[in-house]
Amino acid sequence: ADAAAARAARDRQASLTKPPGSLGRLEDLAVFMAGWQGVERPQIGKAQALVFAGNHGVCAQGVNPFPQEVTAQMVANFEAGGAAINQLCRVSGAELSVVALDLERPTADITEAPAMTGEETLAEMRRGAGAVSAGAQVVILGEMGIGNSTIAAALSCASFGGAPEDWIGRGTGSDEAGLARKADAVRRACARHAGAQGLDILAALGGREQAAICGAVLEARARRIPVILDGFICTAATAPLYVADPRLLDHCLVGHVSREPGHARLLAALDKTPVLALDMALGEGSGAALALGVLRAALECHNGMATFAQAGVAGG
Amino acid sequence: ADAAAARAARDRQASLTKPPGSLGRLEDLAVFMAGWQGVERPQIGKAQALVFAGNHGVCAQGVNPFPQEVTAQMVANFEAGGAAINQLCRVSGAELSVVALDLERPTADITEAPAMTGEETLAEMRRGAGAVSAGAQVVILGEMGIGNSTIAAALSCASFGGAPEDWIGRGTGSDEAGLARKADAVRRACARHAGAQGLDILAALGGREQAAICGAVLEARARRIPVILDGFICTAATAPLYVADPRLLDHCLVGHVSREPGHARLLAALDKTPVLALDMALGEGSGAALALGVLRAALECHNGMATFAQAGVAGG
Repeated sequence: ADAAAARAARDRQASLTKPPGSLGRLEDLAVFMAGWQGVERPQIGKAQALVFAGNHGVCAQGVNPFPQEVTAQMVANFEAGGAAINQLCRVSGAELSVVALDLERPTADITEAPAMTGEETLAEMRRGAGAVSAGAQVVILGEMGIGNSTIAAALSCASFGGAPEDWIGRGTGSDEAGLARKADAVRRACARHAGAQGLDILAALGGREQAAICGAVLEARARRIPVILDGFICTAATAPLYVADPRLLDHCLVGHVSREPGHARLLAALDKTPVLALDMALGEGSGAALALGVLRAALECHNGMATFAQAGVAGG
Repeated sequence: ADAAAARAARDRQASLTKPPGSLGRLEDLAVFMAGWQGVERPQIGKAQALVFAGNHGVCAQGVNPFPQEVTAQMVANFEAGGAAINQLCRVSGAELSVVALDLERPTADITEAPAMTGEETLAEMRRGAGAVSAGAQVVILGEMGIGNSTIAAALSCASFGGAPEDWIGRGTGSDEAGLARKADAVRRACARHAGAQGLDILAALGGREQAAICGAVLEARARRIPVILDGFICTAATAPLYVADPRLLDHCLVGHVSREPGHARLLAALDKTPVLALDMALGEGSGAALALGVLRAALECHNGMATFAQAGVAGG
C-alpha cells in the first residue's frame, strides 16, 4: 500500500467537520482504500463480486444433510437472480459473476487422499486469478459448495492447530450426529495430511473454490485491488496464504463475522476485525456484499464532507 | 405490530433459497418491518431522516471543549450538505430534514434548575411529532447539540440508576478534567431532580432535541412507522419513554452501538440489540443512516429471493 496516500487520507479525515476519530471504522476504511488505490480520495467505480462453486469428496463421510446436487442447483439460482447474493449485489452496486468449477467432478475425499493434485490446485488458482477484472476498484469474494464448511474447518485446523471441535459448526444445518461426523472427518483428514505446509495445505485439505479464492486474492494483490472476504468458508480458504506469508492478506478486509463458531477464532488467528456482525451464516459472499455498502458509505463521507475551514465551523 | 403479517413474513423467510435462519439479523429485520407495516412483503419507499438540534445550559459547567456556537455552525453545515449525515443519507436513500430548536435560547442549566418547564417540554415534543412525515415508511432520528452527551448521561442515570461515571464518556473530545466535570455535573443534576418520574425526567434533565425525539418517536408509534434510533445521545433521549412504558419503543431499532461507553449499558437496560458496531461516536443520525442500508438489504432479500419451489432447489 501507498503510505503517503494513506497519510494524506488520514490528514483529510482530521480536517473534516466532525470530532477527530468519530467516524470510527469508516475512517479506517477510507484510509485503507486510499493506501491501496494510491490516492488521497479513493473511489469505487466498478465493484466486482466473484462467487466460486465446487463440490467435495468429503461429502461421502456424511458431513452435510444436503445432497451435492444442491451446489449446481444454487449456481442455477445465482444465474437466474434468485439467491441472496443477487439481491445484495444489486443493493450494494456490485457486478456479480458466478464461476462453477467442474461441479460434476468433486475433489477427492480428504479423509482418504489429497483433495487435489498440485497441478489441479494451480489450475484452479489460475481460474480464480483469471476471473478478477483489471478494472475493478474492489473485489468481493464468496463461495458455494455443499460440504465446504468441513473443508473450512480442516484448512483452519491444519493452518492454526487446535482441536477439530474448535473449528466445526452446524454449517447449513447439521444435527448433533452430523457435527460428530464433521469433527471425525476433520480429525482423520488432518492426521492423514499432517506434514503439509503452506500451499500444500490447500491441495491436501482444500477444494476447487478454495483454490480459486486464493488465486483471486493473489491476483488482486498484484493489481493492488482491495478485497472483501466473506464469512468462515471464504476466510478459511485464505488461511494457507496467511501461513505462507501474512502480508499476502494485507489488502483483504473481512466483511462480517459469521455465526459459524470457528470464524471468530479464525479472525483472531488472521488478526482481522470484521466490518459487520449480523449473525449470518449463508456464504455466497453475502456478508462481503453488505460490507461493501459500509465501504461505499465510508468513501462518501471521506470525499463528500466539508472541512472545518470550508464550513466555517469552529474546532478544526 | 401485526402478528399475522409478521408470521407470514417468517414463513416466507423459511421458504427462501437459503438454510433456515442463515440470514440472521436480516431475517429479523424483515419480519419486524412486516409486523409494523402489516404486510408480508414490506417496502421502504420514503425514508425520512430527522436531525434535531438544541443548546444546553449545562455547558456553563465546562462539560464540553467546544463553544455552543458550534451547534448553529453544524446546522448550517447540514443545510449546506457538508456533514457526515448528508453523505450517509444520500448513500442510504433517506430524505434529510434538520430542525433547529431555538438555538439562541439554551435550556436551563440542569445542575441548577429543570432544563425546561412542562409547557416547554410539551411544545418541543409537538415540534418533533409535527416533523414526522405521514408518508414515511421508516424514520431515522438523530441529534446535534454541544454538551448533550452530558444530558444523555443524566437522562440515563436518572432513568436506570448507577453512578454518573457509568454513563459518561469523552463525547466530542473531553480530556480527563472534562470527564470529571461531566461526572460532577451529572451527579449534582440527578441529586437536584431526584424525585422526577417518567416524562418529568425529560423536562428536568433533558433538552429541546431530546423532547423533540420523544415526540417524533410517539408520533411514529401512532402511525405505525418503524424508527431507527442513532447512538448514545439519541437513544438516551428515549429512556424516559421506556421508563413510562417499555412498549413505547417497540417500533424502534437502534442503528448502532456507539463508542461512547454508556451506550452498551443503555442498550442492555432498554433490551435493544444494535444493528451495527463500527466504533463510531458522531451522532447526527449517522449510525442510524448506515443501519438503513442494512434494513434495505434485508428487505431486498426478503422480497426478491426465489423460494425453494420456484428455483427447483432441494431442501425446502
